[in-house]
Amino acid sequence: MKSPIDSRARFVETTAALLRRQGYHATGLAQVVEESGAPKGSLYFHFPGGKEELAKAALERSSQELQAKLAAIAAGAKGPAAAVRAVTSALADELEASRFQDGCPVATVALEAAAQVPVLQAVCSAAYARWQALLEGYLAHSGMPAARARSLATLVLAAVEGALLLSRAHADATPLRTVGHELARALEAQVSEAAAAPSPAASPSRARPSAAKARRGRARR
Amino acid sequence: MKSPIDSRARFVETTAALLRRQGYHATGLAQVVEESGAPKGSLYFHFPGGKEELAKAALERSSQELQAKLAAIAAGAKGPAAAVRAVTSALADELEASRFQDGCPVATVALEAAAQVPVLQAVCSAAYARWQALLEGYLAHSGMPAARARSLATLVLAAVEGALLLSRAHADATPLRTVGHELARALEAQVSEAAAAPSPAASPSRARPSAAKARRGRARR
Repeated sequence: MKSPIDSRARFVETTAALLRRQGYHATGLAQVVEESGAPKGSLYFHFPGGKEELAKAALERSSQELQAKLAAIAAGAKGPAAAVRAVTSALADELEASRFQDGCPVATVALEAAAQVPVLQAVCSAAYARWQALLEGYLAHSGMPAARARSLATLVLAAVEGALLLSRAHADATPLRTVGHELARALEAQVSEAAAAPSPAASPSRARPSAAKARRGRARR
Repeated sequence: MKSPIDSRARFVETTAALLRRQGYHATGLAQVVEESGAPKGSLYFHFPGGKEELAKAALERSSQELQAKLAAIAAGAKGPAAAVRAVTSALADELEASRFQDGCPVATVALEAAAQVPVLQAVCSAAYARWQALLEGYLAHSGMPAARARSLATLVLAAVEGALLLSRAHADATPLRTVGHELARALEAQVSEAAAAPSPAASPSRARPSAAKARRGRARR
């Protein structure tokens, strides 16, 4: 059972969980070895670069796992507003189930190591760039103009990250659920606006202001 | 010059700067003493509780300083949309000027210590609660119904926190400026919506919404 592949995977998994819960500086290699149950001697065999290399592998793995999970939830939802509600609800459930320990697997390290450990700054930046690209693609696919999709994807990603932070800080998932609700409202408004935009003269009543606003939004980029 | 009051203030100020840039676990008392220039012997005189007590005082100070600064910026702006643009722009400038080190003074510790150091979890939670209350009051003052003000204040706080995180992770303030722009759009839409609500059939002219907003704003105080 304790093949080299098992040991490597166990080091990565244990490190990912520790980085998510307590961050980079609080996570020592001794704790990783102890909690993983893998043989100490194999740590430097798998990760000759030590803690930085192990953290890099762990962050890549946990960010990709979360991405796959959230993409699957979003793919099952009917449109952006439903998707953001489903995703924030799943994140809130996970946070509550872990007694407010399992927030974003990248955020703590991103803040701690941002200006100090270039390798980790790069891996965190890459993870956020992938999530941004996923969101942008999803919003564009739902019919939003590319520039609006890009800008709204940044709002959604930032608001969800911030809500995870606030929910951990308060030990209460209310901010995450509230932000899910507000983002869904904003996305619904945007989708109606985009839908109304192609034929601004169709109706003189309620469609007009939002169509005008949509045109202004496009003109600004 | 080196009075006890000076030493205490210097310990707090140095700790606040270190917590903001590198977090709790990476900050040791030896570094605080060295960078503060205050006498080592006075550290436990001022902070018999050691690192936790010092971190608590530092977080309280830095969160209150940032709050005062942002409240002053918001007070000088014409309404919520202009205020959020001005605040995110000021935060982006500060982040760039510090080479992406000076983000939120509370966030790193909030994530690291959330589930591990109850004293720090409480002080971070209190800081975010004060900022939430400030935002809520500001939005309600601008004429929004209380429930909308509460919910939108959470969105604004979360999005700005998340944008500070993303901007640090990317070493690029674009997320912060984009989020400022998107939040301003959302707040503008909300203000128009609130203004239009009481008398939907009253008049098609443009002057009406702001007059209605002013009336409602006054009536609620």
